[in-house]
Amino acid sequence: MEIPQLIMLPGPTNVHPRVYAAMCKPMIDHRSKEFRVLYMRLLESVKKVFQTENDVFILTSSGTGGVECAASNLLLPGEKIILPVAGNFGERFAESFSNYGIKVIRINIEPGKSPKLEQIEAAIRNNPDAKAVAIIYNETSTGTTVRDLSKICKMAKDLGMITIVDAISILGGDDLPVDEWEVDFCIAASQKCLAAPPGLALVSVSRDAWKLIERAKPRSDYFDLIKYRKYRDEQKETPFTPAINLFYALDEAINIVLEYGFDKWIERHKITSKAYYSAIFAMGLPFLAEEWCRSNTVIAVKMPNGIPAKLLRELLAEKYRVVVAGGFGGLRNSIFRIGNMGLINPRDILTTLSSIESAFFELGYPIKSGIEAAIPILKNLD
Amino acid sequence: MEIPQLIMLPGPTNVHPRVYAAMCKPMIDHRSKEFRVLYMRLLESVKKVFQTENDVFILTSSGTGGVECAASNLLLPGEKIILPVAGNFGERFAESFSNYGIKVIRINIEPGKSPKLEQIEAAIRNNPDAKAVAIIYNETSTGTTVRDLSKICKMAKDLGMITIVDAISILGGDDLPVDEWEVDFCIAASQKCLAAPPGLALVSVSRDAWKLIERAKPRSDYFDLIKYRKYRDEQKETPFTPAINLFYALDEAINIVLEYGFDKWIERHKITSKAYYSAIFAMGLPFLAEEWCRSNTVIAVKMPNGIPAKLLRELLAEKYRVVVAGGFGGLRNSIFRIGNMGLINPRDILTTLSSIESAFFELGYPIKSGIEAAIPILKNLD
Repeated sequence: MEIPQLIMLPGPTNVHPRVYAAMCKPMIDHRSKEFRVLYMRLLESVKKVFQTENDVFILTSSGTGGVECAASNLLLPGEKIILPVAGNFGERFAESFSNYGIKVIRINIEPGKSPKLEQIEAAIRNNPDAKAVAIIYNETSTGTTVRDLSKICKMAKDLGMITIVDAISILGGDDLPVDEWEVDFCIAASQKCLAAPPGLALVSVSRDAWKLIERAKPRSDYFDLIKYRKYRDEQKETPFTPAINLFYALDEAINIVLEYGFDKWIERHKITSKAYYSAIFAMGLPFLAEEWCRSNTVIAVKMPNGIPAKLLRELLAEKYRVVVAGGFGGLRNSIFRIGNMGLINPRDILTTLSSIESAFFELGYPIKSGIEAAIPILKNLD
Repeated sequence: MEIPQLIMLPGPTNVHPRVYAAMCKPMIDHRSKEFRVLYMRLLESVKKVFQTENDVFILTSSGTGGVECAASNLLLPGEKIILPVAGNFGERFAESFSNYGIKVIRINIEPGKSPKLEQIEAAIRNNPDAKAVAIIYNETSTGTTVRDLSKICKMAKDLGMITIVDAISILGGDDLPVDEWEVDFCIAASQKCLAAPPGLALVSVSRDAWKLIERAKPRSDYFDLIKYRKYRDEQKETPFTPAINLFYALDEAINIVLEYGFDKWIERHKITSKAYYSAIFAMGLPFLAEEWCRSNTVIAVKMPNGIPAKLLRELLAEKYRVVVAGGFGGLRNSIFRIGNMGLINPRDILTTLSSIESAFFELGYPIKSGIEAAIPILKNLD
């Protein structure tokens, strides 16, 4: 029966009815007082979730647009950056920079692992002329998080390099105090742990990042941050027509987060991810990520016994109406990924876990139940 | 009293409640059967409004993103294009191309006029090595339309150049049979005559345009059309997370257009623009555009007696709740612009006209009424 699906993806997520209601507010002029009030308020809210006093901007694009914004504004063709690649999004990250003629010093990381301070340090030592270290904080394709991020940012800062952090699939789901950790350029998106609809990228820009941007005209017009800053400062507007309804939606989505409390929101993701890991461990299913770098926001689970992930996912989506993701590239059929993002709550987690158990039973591969392992962890969640 | 405003802008427009309802459909996975069905259906709908069998794509960006898509895919740095500049959007158009190192051969056109076949012909004669002619079909800042467009496209095709047509503020509001006129690369946006919310750009790509694109890797990753084509062909998906809710909204907005009949939809814009021009002429207010190149979709009116447009616009927006646009740059306070786009109907047109009359009266500059001139023209509208 085609009831609405429960979206347990690493983005997009389930969206609160309040957010949909805000998205349908009457249309306004994007060159009006009404828009200026919305835009200025939203920029302040975005600063709160980045935990920064730096400039922030909202781009009408997917998260990848935010990445392109970094690549086209910060660096000049021929300049070097250090960039660990731990999965599919790392690959894309590297491609975005090299497309603009930037020389990418890759550090290849095995799937399931995450780059460590020592690896970045070695790369910096071999490339002291690099301008930046670019890190995918949470590799969505493998469910791993860079646990050394604060140390990496500190080291880069000490050595005169900026850090570019893709936090798309983690901002709001784990610690990321942009100012405290001195992240120079941070990228996030609307449809992940903030639980707004997809279509907006968020970026934060430090003073050191501005210094690089101001050296030359940005290569892209659409993602030109100098223009974004000028329009904000002179008119409190965006240079190009923004996705007004998505601005309203993001505004309300962040309101929900801030009403709950941003620290508690992050803490919630930590608790619920623990519930997932404990339950799935109890089911006897192995994880792709090594324990020390497991993500709070993306749980990547290896399929047992050679069963294709596609079979599990289709059964879950069609009969149980629970949507989880598959793997990328070579991992397409060998893992499935659960998003632990946004409006996460005990009911939906238990639904997801029990549906997975039921689906494995239907696929002729009964597994142990993990529900009992999840229950005590979820007990203290409000 | 802050009742919702009537949005009579050159985009965004008033949005039908059916479109808002579609925008709030339950979230889906953008890598799912549900999304693939939506995307494939929407591409077919978009082909209908472009009147083309060419490839079409939907980008999560404003219309300017569609322009950047052209600049970053079609031409290589150092290549030449011929580009008339008749206003603010022409300036931006030129900037988008020159940002990518493309040599722009400008044809400067006075505000209120529109480029003619002979001018393009002369530029081509002087620059036979140019790869493309880039035309803003409807210059939103001045309310002018290129009446020679079909002839310009034919001439360019005969001389082996492609045409890049920015039809953002006109597609759906005037004739533009992309295949019949042999437009190679056409750009439109969601929030204009199709009356969907802002946030999506639409592009059509001819076989000759593909030949140019395939010569080299596109410069932008986010707007990489080779990637868009590959994902469409192999997966029926977009390469990056699309603004799913806006896809639903655009789908429903185009349904409304097609149910009404696309030819009739265009015809409606012609009739209602005639009502505006006749009424405003009767009011004794002069137009910025010369009569031969007046736009159906943007009515640019000169302010009489040195009254700043800002005063009129604020009074209209705040008291009458009718929103019209001002001018750009040097024209900011000397003109106002009415959008004649999308869900246009006699009631809203009469509301706009009578509110303008009332506002001028309040500003101490009573004008003659134009309502009587509009009524007979609106009579035959269904």
